[in-house]
This record gives sequence, C-alpha cells and structure tokens, in this order.
Amino acid sequence: MRISELATRSGVSAASIKWYAREGLLPAGNRTGYNQTEYGEEHLARLHLIRSLIEVGGLSVAAARNVLAAADDPAHPFGDTLGIAQASLPRSTTPPTAESVQQVTDAARAQGWEVFDDNPGLPAAAAVLDRYRALGREDLAATLPGYVRAAEIVAAADLDCITKHLDAGPATAAQTVVVGTVLGDALLAGLRRMAQASESHRRFGPTPGSPS
Amino acid sequence: MRISELATRSGVSAASIKWYAREGLLPAGNRTGYNQTEYGEEHLARLHLIRSLIEVGGLSVAAARNVLAAADDPAHPFGDTLGIAQASLPRSTTPPTAESVQQVTDAARAQGWEVFDDNPGLPAAAAVLDRYRALGREDLAATLPGYVRAAEIVAAADLDCITKHLDAGPATAAQTVVVGTVLGDALLAGLRRMAQASESHRRFGPTPGSPS
Repeated sequence: MRISELATRSGVSAASIKWYAREGLLPAGNRTGYNQTEYGEEHLARLHLIRSLIEVGGLSVAAARNVLAAADDPAHPFGDTLGIAQASLPRSTTPPTAESVQQVTDAARAQGWEVFDDNPGLPAAAAVLDRYRALGREDLAATLPGYVRAAEIVAAADLDCITKHLDAGPATAAQTVVVGTVLGDALLAGLRRMAQASESHRRFGPTPGSPS
Repeated sequence: MRISELATRSGVSAASIKWYAREGLLPAGNRTGYNQTEYGEEHLARLHLIRSLIEVGGLSVAAARNVLAAADDPAHPFGDTLGIAQASLPRSTTPPTAESVQQVTDAARAQGWEVFDDNPGLPAAAAVLDRYRALGREDLAATLPGYVRAAEIVAAADLDCITKHLDAGPATAAQTVVVGTVLGDALLAGLRRMAQASESHRRFGPTPGSPS
C-alpha cells in the first residue's frame, strides 16, 4: 500500500510515519520508483505497536526505540526483555540517595520480596522519595506500604498473563512483557484516578460530576 | 541569587530555567540591571516542584504547566485540583470505543466503585484496552480485575494521606494531590518493576542479576 493508505489505516500521519522510519522504529518501505514507496501489513502492525507505546503509554521516541529493539530480537532472553521493558521508566538525572534506596528496599522486604540491586525500578522508586524530601513532603512516603501491596497484586496478574503465553514462543512472550509493562502502567494510572474519585466520593460525599 | 547559583542549587541548567520562565512554569526573576536578574528561595522551591513533575513524574512541559496552574490557585476547589492532576495522564488522540469504556466500567463496578463518566481515568484506561485489541492481544485484558483491586489499595493510601493534611489549608492539600498523583504514578511503576522481578524469581527461579 502507499503511505497515504498506511496513514489512514494506522491513524498515524504520513509525516510521523516518515519520522519513525528515519528514527529506526519502523523498517523502511520498499521503494518502487521515484518518490514512491510501498508498505505492507507488517508496517501497519508495527505502527499499531508504536502508537501504543508512544501515544497511550506516554513513552518518548527514544524510550520506544529501546523497548522495540528488545521485542524484535528473537535471541533476546526473557529476563533481558523484562529488563528493557523496565528501562522504559523515566529516569532522574541525579542518582537516588542511599537513604531512599534503603527505604524502598526495607518496604519491599517487609512484604517478602526478593530485592535485586540492578532492577531499574529501585532507583526510579527511590528517586520519587528523594523528590518528596526535596519538596519538604516526607509525609507522602506514608503511602509506601500500601503501594508495595498494590504493586504485588499487579505483578501477580502480570506474571499470570506472561505464564499463560510461554508456549506461544519467545516472540509472543516478549511482546506480552513489552506491551503489558508499558501499557499496564497507563492502565493502572487510569484506574487509580477512577479509584481516587470513587474513594473521595465515599469519604467526603458528592464530587463534581454525576455518577454514570 | 543569580541564575548561576539557582542552577547549582536546583540542579536545573540555566538554559532550562530560562525556558521554564518563558513557558510560564516559573515566575520571572527580578531584573536588577542590564542582563542581570535576581531569583529568590521561592524560585528554588518552584524548580524542585517542576523537576519532580517533569524528570521524575515523566510529564511533558505542557502537562506540567496545567498541573502547576491548578496547584497555584488558592480558590481552586479540591475536587477540581484532583481533576487537573488527573488530567496529567497521557491522552490518546482517538476517543476510546464504547466497548472498552463499558469493560472498564463493569470491572470497576464489580469492585463496588462509583464510576464517574467525566473522570479522565476512564478514557485513559479504556484506550489501553483498545490498544490491546488493535495489537491482537485482547488476552492482556485478563489483568483487569487484579489491576482494579490494586488501584483501590493505592487510592485508599492516597486518600489517607490527603485526609491527614486537610487542616493544613487548601494550598497544602492541593500540593499533596498534585505531587502525590503525578509522582505516585512513578513510584508505583518503579515498585511494579521490582515486584515483577521478585515474582518472576519466585516462579521461575534465579533471574539475571544477584539479589542484594
């Protein structure tokens, strides 16, 4: 198909398609003549994946490229794919303090978790506690035990889903991990907003907006 | 203080400080002469908040500006501040399908939630289910009930924290909501990665990387 048809079917503009190809997220099309390029169904499928990561998952183009590179490599071990999907987390430019790393580690161990030093979630979570402190809002860290319990429930649901598809081959398992991790964050953030509104309504009475 | 001192103390480059001021996130400094501007402690505190939202929370500059505008307005009703912090979610350019909105609504009601039509979390969560479907991975929606239970635990911890600070005045309550919501997503995403690694280790045995 021509780029105009690919744009219509994918919902991604022709300019963005060219940009993703230049940036290495999308394989180049097949040049069939001067200023004319053919694209296939594999380009359409790929654009669905790119849109998911960037528009719905909120990843930067650079983060999406890293995540896609891991999902593409059939030789990529499962553990590493998990690691690269995990690297899609926003990263603070400053390393977290030892105090916050310890605070997260303690909260995780209190819930019985095995804590891995090289897990990118550890500095990401510790960086949040550092920001609470910089803002003079150490009190917000009181949410930590509740968040740890919630994260455990989410991870169990994630692993159930991954386990179910282990026999579908490594490519599907990689896609499950990559898509499920990035989009799962967006799903959880959306549900959290809904739960806050519901819980606020339960505790404080009617909130603006009518129940559906 | 001069911009160079402000940059050192905040960890934000002088170029970024100027950009944030131009974009309306940071109030302008006090011009004391040609090419010389003075900044105060309030600019430092504000830069800590901006860094939190953008670097650690992963918000775009435009999203951070909206969230800060809500936190700044002392007349802003609590419910609206919650609404604007909620609007920090990534937004799909396509409205979600009625089918996915219903699927999220049903899962939330099954957990006893009050569902508000105008909550931005609802289309954000539904957009994720639409992306699962576009990718041919409807099976990933099997995580929904687990995520709903987890979101409820998180929201209860959030509301406990907000409730504790209601008597500190509306400005503090607004800051709690704004900072807690945006950074809370990042904290939860980090803990989720740690929980996945721990759960994967428990189910499948040793993973790359040694326990600390």
